[in-house]
Amino acid sequence: MEKPKYVQIYESLVEEIESERLKPGDRLPSERELSQQLGVSRMTVRQAVDTLANQGFVTRSHGSGTFVTEFKIDQEAGFLIGFHEAMIELGHKPGAKLLTFERLLANQKLAGLLKVDIGRPLYYIQRLRTVNEKPHALENTYLPEEFFPGIDEFDLIERSIYNIMEEEYGLQLDKAEQTWEPIIANEYESEVLSVSIGAPLMLVHRISYRQDGQPVEYAKDIFRGDRSRFVSRSVYRK
Amino acid sequence: MEKPKYVQIYESLVEEIESERLKPGDRLPSERELSQQLGVSRMTVRQAVDTLANQGFVTRSHGSGTFVTEFKIDQEAGFLIGFHEAMIELGHKPGAKLLTFERLLANQKLAGLLKVDIGRPLYYIQRLRTVNEKPHALENTYLPEEFFPGIDEFDLIERSIYNIMEEEYGLQLDKAEQTWEPIIANEYESEVLSVSIGAPLMLVHRISYRQDGQPVEYAKDIFRGDRSRFVSRSVYRK
Repeated sequence: MEKPKYVQIYESLVEEIESERLKPGDRLPSERELSQQLGVSRMTVRQAVDTLANQGFVTRSHGSGTFVTEFKIDQEAGFLIGFHEAMIELGHKPGAKLLTFERLLANQKLAGLLKVDIGRPLYYIQRLRTVNEKPHALENTYLPEEFFPGIDEFDLIERSIYNIMEEEYGLQLDKAEQTWEPIIANEYESEVLSVSIGAPLMLVHRISYRQDGQPVEYAKDIFRGDRSRFVSRSVYRK
Repeated sequence: MEKPKYVQIYESLVEEIESERLKPGDRLPSERELSQQLGVSRMTVRQAVDTLANQGFVTRSHGSGTFVTEFKIDQEAGFLIGFHEAMIELGHKPGAKLLTFERLLANQKLAGLLKVDIGRPLYYIQRLRTVNEKPHALENTYLPEEFFPGIDEFDLIERSIYNIMEEEYGLQLDKAEQTWEPIIANEYESEVLSVSIGAPLMLVHRISYRQDGQPVEYAKDIFRGDRSRFVSRSVYRK
Protein backbone atom coordinates (compact mmCIF):
# COMPACT_ATOMS: atom_id res chain seq x y z
CA MET A 1 0.00 0.00 0.00
CA GLU A 2 1.16 3.56 -0.69
CA LYS A 3 2.12 5.56 2.37
CA PRO A 4 -0.62 7.91 3.57
CA LYS A 5 0.13 11.66 3.37
CA TYR A 6 0.47 12.01 7.14
CA VAL A 7 3.09 9.25 7.22
CA GLN A 8 5.12 11.08 4.57
CA ILE A 9 4.97 14.29 6.65
CA TYR A 10 5.81 12.34 9.80
CA GLU A 11 8.85 10.85 8.07
CA SER A 12 10.09 14.21 6.81
CA LEU A 13 9.77 15.63 10.35
CA VAL A 14 11.68 12.63 11.74
CA GLU A 15 14.39 13.39 9.15
CA GLU A 16 14.49 17.03 10.37
CA ILE A 17 14.91 15.84 13.96
CA GLU A 18 17.44 13.12 13.22
CA SER A 19 19.60 15.45 11.14
CA GLU A 20 19.32 17.98 14.00
CA ARG A 21 17.93 20.73 11.80
CA LEU A 22 15.29 20.57 14.54
CA LYS A 23 17.23 20.25 17.81
CA PRO A 24 16.23 18.82 21.20
CA GLY A 25 14.16 21.45 23.01
CA ASP A 26 13.17 23.28 19.78
CA ARG A 27 9.55 24.25 19.47
CA LEU A 28 7.77 22.67 16.50
CA PRO A 29 5.95 25.12 14.19
CA SER A 30 2.22 25.29 15.01
CA GLU A 31 -0.28 23.09 13.16
CA ARG A 32 -1.45 26.16 11.26
CA GLU A 33 2.07 27.08 10.20
CA LEU A 34 2.90 23.51 9.17
CA SER A 35 -0.34 23.14 7.24
CA GLN A 36 0.41 26.36 5.29
CA GLN A 37 4.08 25.45 4.69
CA LEU A 38 3.27 21.96 3.47
CA GLY A 39 0.00 22.69 1.69
CA VAL A 40 -1.98 20.00 3.52
CA SER A 41 -4.96 20.07 5.86
CA ARG A 42 -4.52 20.70 9.57
CA MET A 43 -6.02 17.27 10.17
CA THR A 44 -3.17 15.67 8.22
CA VAL A 45 -0.61 17.75 10.14
CA ARG A 46 -2.25 16.72 13.40
CA GLN A 47 -2.04 13.02 12.48
CA ALA A 48 1.65 13.42 11.62
CA VAL A 49 2.41 15.25 14.88
CA ASP A 50 0.34 12.71 16.88
CA THR A 51 2.54 10.00 15.41
CA LEU A 52 5.71 11.93 16.30
CA ALA A 53 4.40 12.26 19.86
CA ASN A 54 3.42 8.56 20.05
CA GLN A 55 6.91 7.59 18.98
CA GLY A 56 8.48 9.94 21.51
CA PHE A 57 10.16 12.31 19.03
CA VAL A 58 8.20 15.28 20.36
CA THR A 59 6.50 16.06 23.63
CA ARG A 60 3.40 18.18 24.01
CA SER A 61 3.55 20.68 26.79
CA HIS A 62 0.09 21.76 27.86
CA GLY A 63 -0.64 25.24 26.53
CA SER A 64 2.88 26.08 25.40
CA GLY A 65 3.29 23.94 22.30
CA THR A 66 5.07 20.88 21.01
CA PHE A 67 8.79 20.46 21.50
CA VAL A 68 11.46 18.14 20.15
CA THR A 69 12.04 15.67 23.00
CA GLU A 70 15.01 16.74 25.10
CA PHE A 71 16.77 13.45 25.62
CA LYS A 72 16.12 9.97 26.83
CA ILE A 73 18.19 8.64 29.66
CA ASP A 74 19.78 5.31 28.82
CA GLN A 75 19.86 2.63 31.47
CA GLU A 76 21.78 -0.60 31.07
CA ALA A 77 19.58 -3.68 31.01
CA GLY A 78 22.48 -6.05 31.57
CA PHE A 79 23.62 -4.53 34.85
CA LEU A 80 22.02 -4.08 38.23
CA ILE A 81 22.99 -0.60 39.38
CA GLY A 82 21.38 1.71 41.93
CA PHE A 83 19.35 4.40 40.16
CA HIS A 84 21.13 7.06 42.21
CA GLU A 85 24.60 5.86 41.14
CA ALA A 86 23.54 5.29 37.51
CA MET A 87 22.25 8.87 37.16
CA ILE A 88 25.34 10.41 38.75
CA GLU A 89 27.53 8.37 36.42
CA LEU A 90 25.63 9.81 33.45
CA GLY A 91 26.06 13.35 34.77
CA HIS A 92 22.44 13.79 35.85
CA LYS A 93 21.06 14.90 39.17
CA PRO A 94 19.01 12.14 40.84
CA GLY A 95 16.37 12.81 43.47
CA ALA A 96 13.68 10.92 45.35
CA LYS A 97 10.45 11.56 47.18
CA LEU A 98 9.19 8.98 49.66
CA LEU A 99 5.50 8.37 48.92
CA THR A 100 4.84 5.31 51.07
CA PHE A 101 6.70 3.36 53.73
CA GLU A 102 4.65 0.47 55.06
CA ARG A 103 5.21 -2.77 56.89
CA LEU A 104 3.01 -5.53 55.50
CA LEU A 105 2.77 -9.31 55.61
CA ALA A 106 3.83 -11.36 52.61
CA ASN A 107 0.88 -12.72 50.62
CA GLN A 108 1.27 -15.85 48.51
CA LYS A 109 2.64 -14.01 45.49
CA LEU A 110 5.22 -11.88 47.36
CA ALA A 111 6.29 -14.82 49.52
CA GLY A 112 6.88 -16.89 46.38
CA LEU A 113 8.88 -14.16 44.65
CA LEU A 114 11.02 -13.40 47.70
CA LYS A 115 11.28 -17.03 48.84
CA VAL A 116 10.08 -16.29 52.37
CA ASP A 117 7.19 -17.87 54.27
CA ILE A 118 3.68 -16.52 53.72
CA GLY A 119 2.91 -13.99 56.45
CA ARG A 120 6.52 -12.85 57.01
CA PRO A 121 6.83 -9.08 57.42
CA LEU A 122 8.00 -7.05 54.43
CA TYR A 123 8.79 -3.39 53.98
CA TYR A 124 6.94 -1.75 51.10
CA ILE A 125 8.67 1.41 49.92
CA GLN A 126 7.17 3.59 47.21
CA ARG A 127 9.36 6.36 45.89
CA LEU A 128 9.04 8.88 43.09
CA ARG A 129 12.44 9.17 41.40
CA THR A 130 13.38 12.44 39.75
CA VAL A 131 16.16 13.32 37.34
CA ASN A 132 17.26 16.94 37.10
CA GLU A 133 14.22 17.82 39.28
CA LYS A 134 11.75 16.20 36.83
CA PRO A 135 9.61 13.11 37.55
CA HIS A 136 11.26 10.08 35.99
CA ALA A 137 10.05 6.85 37.63
CA LEU A 138 7.72 5.43 40.25
CA GLU A 139 9.44 2.70 42.25
CA ASN A 140 7.69 0.06 44.32
CA THR A 141 10.16 -1.94 46.40
CA TYR A 142 9.47 -4.92 48.67
CA LEU A 143 12.18 -6.01 51.13
CA PRO A 144 11.92 -8.83 53.70
CA GLU A 145 12.18 -7.18 57.11
CA GLU A 146 14.29 -10.07 58.45
CA PHE A 147 17.22 -9.08 56.21
CA PHE A 148 17.00 -5.32 56.78
CA PRO A 149 15.44 -4.68 60.22
CA GLY A 150 14.84 -0.98 60.81
CA ILE A 151 15.81 0.13 57.31
CA ASP A 152 13.53 3.16 57.71
CA GLU A 153 16.11 4.63 60.08
CA PHE A 154 18.39 5.24 57.13
CA ASP A 155 18.06 7.95 54.53
CA LEU A 156 15.89 6.49 51.75
CA ILE A 157 15.92 9.81 49.86
CA GLU A 158 19.56 10.67 49.43
CA ARG A 159 20.97 7.13 49.43
CA SER A 160 20.30 4.17 47.18
CA ILE A 161 18.79 1.10 48.82
CA TYR A 162 21.63 -1.03 47.40
CA ASN A 163 24.16 1.21 49.09
CA ILE A 164 22.29 0.89 52.41
CA MET A 165 22.10 -2.91 51.96
CA GLU A 166 25.84 -3.11 51.49
CA GLU A 167 27.13 -0.46 53.88
CA GLU A 168 24.67 -0.94 56.75
CA TYR A 169 23.75 -4.62 56.51
CA GLY A 170 26.97 -6.03 55.02
CA LEU A 171 25.05 -7.68 52.18
CA GLN A 172 26.74 -8.72 48.93
CA LEU A 173 24.36 -8.23 46.00
CA ASP A 174 25.00 -10.58 43.12
CA LYS A 175 22.50 -10.34 40.29
CA ALA A 176 18.91 -9.65 39.33
CA GLU A 177 16.28 -11.05 37.03
CA GLN A 178 14.47 -8.24 35.27
CA THR A 179 11.60 -7.97 32.81
CA TRP A 180 10.52 -5.04 30.63
CA GLU A 181 7.00 -4.42 29.36
CA PRO A 182 5.40 -1.38 27.74
CA ILE A 183 2.25 -0.12 29.45
CA ILE A 184 0.14 3.03 29.26
CA ALA A 185 -0.42 5.44 32.12
CA ASN A 186 -3.53 5.16 34.24
CA GLU A 187 -4.95 8.09 36.19
CA TYR A 188 -2.75 7.56 39.25
CA GLU A 189 0.47 7.08 37.29
CA SER A 190 -0.30 10.09 35.11
CA GLU A 191 -0.71 12.27 38.20
CA VAL A 192 2.41 11.07 39.98
CA LEU A 193 4.64 11.10 36.89
CA SER A 194 3.12 14.27 35.31
CA VAL A 195 2.22 12.67 32.01
CA SER A 196 -1.11 12.35 30.18
CA ILE A 197 -3.38 9.40 30.81
CA GLY A 198 -2.49 6.89 28.08
CA ALA A 199 1.15 8.01 27.80
CA PRO A 200 3.68 5.23 27.19
CA LEU A 201 5.49 3.91 30.26
CA MET A 202 8.00 1.12 30.84
CA LEU A 203 7.09 -1.41 33.51
CA VAL A 204 10.14 -3.13 34.99
CA HIS A 205 9.89 -6.07 37.36
CA ARG A 206 13.00 -7.09 39.23
CA ILE A 207 14.08 -9.73 41.71
CA SER A 208 17.54 -9.09 43.15
CA TYR A 209 19.62 -11.83 44.74
CA ARG A 210 22.43 -11.91 47.23
CA GLN A 211 25.40 -14.17 46.60
CA ASP A 212 23.89 -17.28 48.21
CA GLY A 213 20.93 -17.11 45.81
CA GLN A 214 18.40 -15.74 48.32
CA PRO A 215 16.12 -13.03 46.84
CA VAL A 216 16.43 -9.82 48.86
CA GLU A 217 14.37 -7.37 46.81
CA TYR A 218 11.29 -7.48 44.64
CA ALA A 219 10.65 -4.28 42.71
CA LYS A 220 8.03 -3.03 40.31
CA ASP A 221 9.28 0.18 38.73
CA ILE A 222 7.44 2.35 36.22
CA PHE A 223 9.48 4.69 34.02
CA ARG A 224 8.30 7.61 31.88
CA GLY A 225 8.56 6.44 28.28
CA ASP A 226 9.43 9.90 26.95
CA ARG A 227 12.47 10.09 29.23
CA SER A 228 13.73 6.51 29.46
CA ARG A 229 15.40 4.04 27.19
CA PHE A 230 16.93 0.71 28.11
CA VAL A 231 20.04 -0.49 26.32
CA SER A 232 21.86 -3.79 26.09
CA ARG A 233 24.79 -5.32 24.33
CA SER A 234 23.47 -8.69 23.20
CA VAL A 235 25.65 -11.66 22.33
CA TYR A 236 24.84 -13.75 19.26
CA ARG A 237 23.49 -17.17 20.09
CA LYS A 238 22.44 -19.67 17.45
CA MET B 1 -3.52 9.17 50.35
CA GLU B 2 -6.10 6.40 50.66
CA LYS B 3 -6.44 4.18 47.64
CA PRO B 4 -9.40 5.06 45.43
CA LYS B 5 -12.19 2.45 45.19
CA TYR B 6 -11.30 1.51 41.60
CA VAL B 7 -7.70 0.80 42.64
CA GLN B 8 -8.95 -1.56 45.35
CA ILE B 9 -11.10 -3.41 42.81
CA TYR B 10 -8.22 -3.44 40.33
CA GLU B 11 -5.97 -4.96 42.99
CA SER B 12 -8.47 -7.64 43.93
CA LEU B 13 -8.86 -8.58 40.25
CA VAL B 14 -5.05 -8.73 39.90
CA GLU B 15 -5.04 -11.07 42.90
CA GLU B 16 -7.68 -13.27 41.17
CA ILE B 17 -5.52 -13.42 38.05
CA GLU B 18 -2.22 -13.98 39.82
CA SER B 19 -3.64 -16.78 41.96
CA GLU B 20 -5.13 -18.25 38.73
CA ARG B 21 -8.66 -18.29 40.07
CA LEU B 22 -9.11 -16.35 36.82
CA LYS B 23 -7.03 -18.22 34.23
CA PRO B 24 -5.41 -17.04 30.98
CA GLY B 25 -8.09 -16.92 28.31
CA ASP B 26 -10.97 -16.69 30.83
CA ARG B 27 -13.65 -14.15 30.09
CA LEU B 28 -14.03 -11.44 32.73
CA PRO B 29 -17.57 -10.96 34.07
CA SER B 30 -19.30 -8.04 32.34
CA GLU B 31 -19.22 -4.54 33.85
CA ARG B 32 -22.84 -4.97 34.87
CA GLU B 33 -22.16 -8.29 36.60
CA LEU B 34 -19.07 -6.95 38.38
CA SER B 35 -20.88 -3.81 39.49
CA GLN B 36 -23.70 -5.94 40.99
CA GLN B 37 -21.29 -8.44 42.61
CA LEU B 38 -19.14 -5.73 44.17
CA GLY B 39 -21.84 -3.17 44.93
CA VAL B 40 -20.09 -0.31 43.15
CA SER B 41 -20.97 1.86 40.17
CA ARG B 42 -20.29 0.69 36.62
CA MET B 43 -18.03 3.72 36.25
CA THR B 44 -15.83 2.43 39.07
CA VAL B 45 -15.76 -1.05 37.53
CA ARG B 46 -14.84 0.48 34.18
CA GLN B 47 -11.93 2.38 35.71
CA ALA B 48 -10.66 -0.79 37.38
CA VAL B 49 -10.92 -2.80 34.15
CA ASP B 50 -9.30 0.04 32.17
CA THR B 51 -6.37 -0.15 34.56
CA LEU B 52 -6.16 -3.94 34.18
CA ALA B 53 -6.12 -3.49 30.39
CA ASN B 54 -3.50 -0.70 30.58
CA GLN B 55 -1.27 -2.96 32.62
CA GLY B 56 -1.76 -5.83 30.23
CA PHE B 57 -3.56 -8.21 32.61
CA VAL B 58 -6.63 -8.33 30.38
CA THR B 59 -7.22 -7.73 26.70
CA ARG B 60 -10.39 -6.34 25.20
CA SER B 61 -11.64 -8.15 22.18
CA HIS B 62 -13.94 -5.96 20.12
CA GLY B 63 -17.55 -7.05 20.62
CA SER B 64 -16.83 -10.29 22.43
CA GLY B 65 -15.71 -9.10 25.87
CA THR B 66 -12.64 -8.78 28.05
CA PHE B 67 -10.32 -11.73 28.57
CA VAL B 68 -7.46 -12.55 30.91
CA THR B 69 -4.37 -12.07 28.76
CA GLU B 70 -3.25 -15.41 27.34
CA PHE B 71 0.48 -15.18 27.90
CA LYS B 72 3.37 -12.95 27.15
CA ILE B 73 6.23 -14.37 25.18
CA ASP B 74 9.57 -13.77 26.87
CA GLN B 75 12.50 -12.76 24.73
CA GLU B 76 16.03 -12.55 26.06
CA ALA B 77 17.46 -9.03 26.00
CA GLY B 78 21.00 -10.25 26.54
CA PHE B 79 21.15 -12.49 23.49
CA LEU B 80 20.83 -11.88 19.78
CA ILE B 81 18.72 -14.74 18.43
CA GLY B 82 16.66 -15.01 15.27
CA PHE B 83 12.96 -14.52 16.05
CA HIS B 84 12.17 -17.74 14.17
CA GLU B 85 14.62 -19.81 16.26
CA ALA B 86 13.64 -18.10 19.53
CA MET B 87 9.95 -18.92 19.04
CA ILE B 88 10.60 -22.54 18.08
CA GLU B 89 12.80 -22.93 21.16
CA LEU B 90 9.90 -21.71 23.31
CA GLY B 91 7.50 -24.15 21.66
CA HIS B 92 5.61 -21.55 19.65
CA LYS B 93 4.86 -21.48 15.95
CA PRO B 94 6.54 -18.53 14.24
CA GLY B 95 5.36 -17.07 10.95
CA ALA B 96 6.05 -14.09 8.73
CA LYS B 97 4.38 -12.04 6.04
CA LEU B 98 6.53 -9.94 3.73
CA LEU B 99 5.01 -6.44 3.58
CA THR B 100 7.77 -4.56 1.78
CA PHE B 101 10.98 -5.44 -0.02
CA GLU B 102 12.72 -2.36 -1.41
CA ARG B 103 16.15 -1.35 -2.56
CA LEU B 104 16.97 2.17 -1.40
CA LEU B 105 20.02 4.38 -1.05
CA ALA B 106 21.51 5.04 2.39
CA ASN B 107 20.68 8.51 3.71
CA GLN B 108 22.94 10.19 6.26
CA LYS B 109 21.33 8.47 9.25
CA LEU B 110 21.28 4.93 7.83
CA ALA B 111 24.82 5.32 6.44
CA GLY B 112 26.02 6.41 9.88
CA LEU B 113 24.32 3.53 11.67
CA LEU B 114 25.52 0.90 9.20
CA LYS B 115 28.96 2.48 8.67
CA VAL B 116 28.64 2.56 4.89
CA ASP B 117 28.99 5.54 2.54
CA ILE B 118 25.98 7.78 1.98
CA GLY B 119 24.17 6.68 -1.16
CA ARG B 120 25.16 3.00 -0.94
CA PRO B 121 22.31 0.65 -1.77
CA LEU B 122 20.45 -1.00 1.11
CA TYR B 123 17.68 -3.55 1.23
CA TYR B 124 14.68 -2.50 3.28
CA ILE B 125 12.62 -5.46 4.40
CA GLN B 126 9.37 -5.01 6.32
CA ARG B 127 7.81 -8.14 7.75
CA LEU B 128 4.88 -8.84 9.99
CA ARG B 129 5.87 -11.56 12.42
CA THR B 130 3.24 -13.87 13.80
CA VAL B 131 3.27 -16.31 16.68
CA ASN B 132 0.76 -19.14 16.68
CA GLU B 133 -0.94 -17.41 13.70
CA LYS B 134 -1.45 -14.13 15.64
CA PRO B 135 0.23 -10.79 14.83
CA HIS B 136 3.18 -10.29 17.16
CA ALA B 137 5.66 -7.78 15.75
CA LEU B 138 6.35 -5.46 12.84
CA GLU B 139 9.98 -5.70 11.78
CA ASN B 140 11.83 -3.11 9.69
CA THR B 141 15.24 -4.39 8.63
CA TYR B 142 17.94 -2.54 6.69
CA LEU B 143 20.82 -4.53 5.19
CA PRO B 144 23.69 -3.18 3.06
CA GLU B 145 23.32 -4.76 -0.37
CA GLU B 146 27.10 -5.16 -0.71
CA PHE B 147 27.17 -7.79 2.05
CA PHE B 148 24.09 -9.72 0.92
CA PRO B 149 23.66 -9.25 -2.85
CA GLY B 150 20.44 -10.84 -4.09
CA ILE B 151 19.11 -11.76 -0.64
CA ASP B 152 15.57 -11.55 -2.03
CA GLU B 153 16.23 -14.82 -3.86
CA PHE B 154 16.12 -16.62 -0.53
CA ASP B 155 13.05 -17.45 1.50
CA LEU B 156 12.45 -14.45 3.80
CA ILE B 157 9.24 -15.99 5.15
CA GLU B 158 10.24 -19.43 6.36
CA ARG B 159 13.88 -18.69 7.24
CA SER B 160 15.42 -16.20 9.63
CA ILE B 161 17.63 -13.52 8.09
CA TYR B 162 20.44 -14.51 10.48
CA ASN B 163 20.28 -18.07 9.20
CA ILE B 164 20.46 -16.83 5.59
CA MET B 165 23.39 -14.55 6.48
CA GLU B 166 25.29 -17.47 7.92
CA GLU B 167 24.36 -20.30 5.61
CA GLU B 168 24.25 -18.43 2.31
CA TYR B 169 26.80 -15.64 2.81
CA GLY B 170 29.19 -17.33 5.24
CA LEU B 171 28.88 -14.47 7.70
CA GLN B 172 29.74 -14.83 11.41
CA LEU B 173 27.42 -12.71 13.51
CA ASP B 174 28.96 -11.54 16.77
CA LYS B 175 26.81 -9.19 18.81
CA ALA B 176 24.19 -6.45 18.70
CA GLU B 177 23.46 -3.18 20.42
CA GLN B 178 19.78 -2.96 21.25
CA THR B 179 17.50 -0.37 22.84
CA TRP B 180 13.98 -0.77 24.24
CA GLU B 181 11.39 2.02 24.47
CA PRO B 182 7.66 1.91 25.19
CA ILE B 183 5.47 3.62 22.57
CA ILE B 184 1.77 3.70 21.77
CA ALA B 185 0.22 2.45 18.55
CA ASN B 186 -0.58 4.88 15.77
CA GLU B 187 -3.21 4.18 13.13
CA TYR B 188 -0.89 2.23 10.83
CA GLU B 189 0.61 0.09 13.61
CA SER B 190 -2.82 -0.60 15.07
CA GLU B 191 -4.03 -1.88 11.70
CA VAL B 192 -1.04 -4.06 10.97
CA LEU B 193 -0.74 -5.49 14.50
CA SER B 194 -4.52 -5.74 15.17
CA VAL B 195 -4.48 -3.64 18.33
CA SER B 196 -6.34 -0.47 19.28
CA ILE B 197 -4.86 2.93 18.49
CA GLY B 198 -3.04 3.94 21.68
CA ALA B 199 -2.21 0.37 22.71
CA PRO B 200 1.20 -0.13 24.33
CA LEU B 201 3.97 -1.37 22.04
CA MET B 202 7.67 -2.03 22.52
CA LEU B 203 10.00 -0.27 20.10
CA VAL B 204 13.32 -2.08 19.71
CA HIS B 205 16.24 -0.63 17.77
CA ARG B 206 19.11 -2.93 16.92
CA ILE B 207 22.45 -2.76 15.20
CA SER B 208 24.01 -6.18 14.62
CA TYR B 209 27.72 -6.65 14.00
CA ARG B 210 29.82 -9.31 12.37
CA GLN B 211 33.02 -10.44 14.04
CA ASP B 212 35.26 -7.73 12.56
CA GLY B 213 33.03 -5.02 14.06
CA GLN B 214 31.27 -4.03 10.82
CA PRO B 215 27.52 -3.41 11.28
CA VAL B 216 25.52 -5.68 8.98
CA GLU B 217 21.94 -5.00 10.06
CA TYR B 218 19.94 -2.07 11.37
CA ALA B 219 16.49 -2.99 12.60
CA LYS B 220 13.53 -1.16 14.05
CA ASP B 221 11.09 -3.69 15.45
CA ILE B 222 7.75 -2.99 17.06
CA PHE B 223 6.26 -5.64 19.36
CA ARG B 224 2.72 -5.92 20.70
CA GLY B 225 2.89 -4.99 24.37
CA ASP B 226 0.13 -7.39 25.38
CA ARG B 227 2.06 -10.35 23.95
CA SER B 228 5.73 -9.48 24.56
CA ARG B 229 8.02 -9.22 27.50
CA PHE B 230 11.77 -8.82 27.46
CA VAL B 231 13.86 -10.49 30.13
CA SER B 232 17.43 -10.17 31.29
CA ARG B 233 19.72 -11.54 33.93
CA SER B 234 21.56 -8.45 35.18
CA VAL B 235 24.88 -8.55 36.97
CA TYR B 236 25.42 -6.33 40.01
CA ARG B 237 27.81 -3.46 39.36
CA LYS B 238 28.67 -0.91 42.00
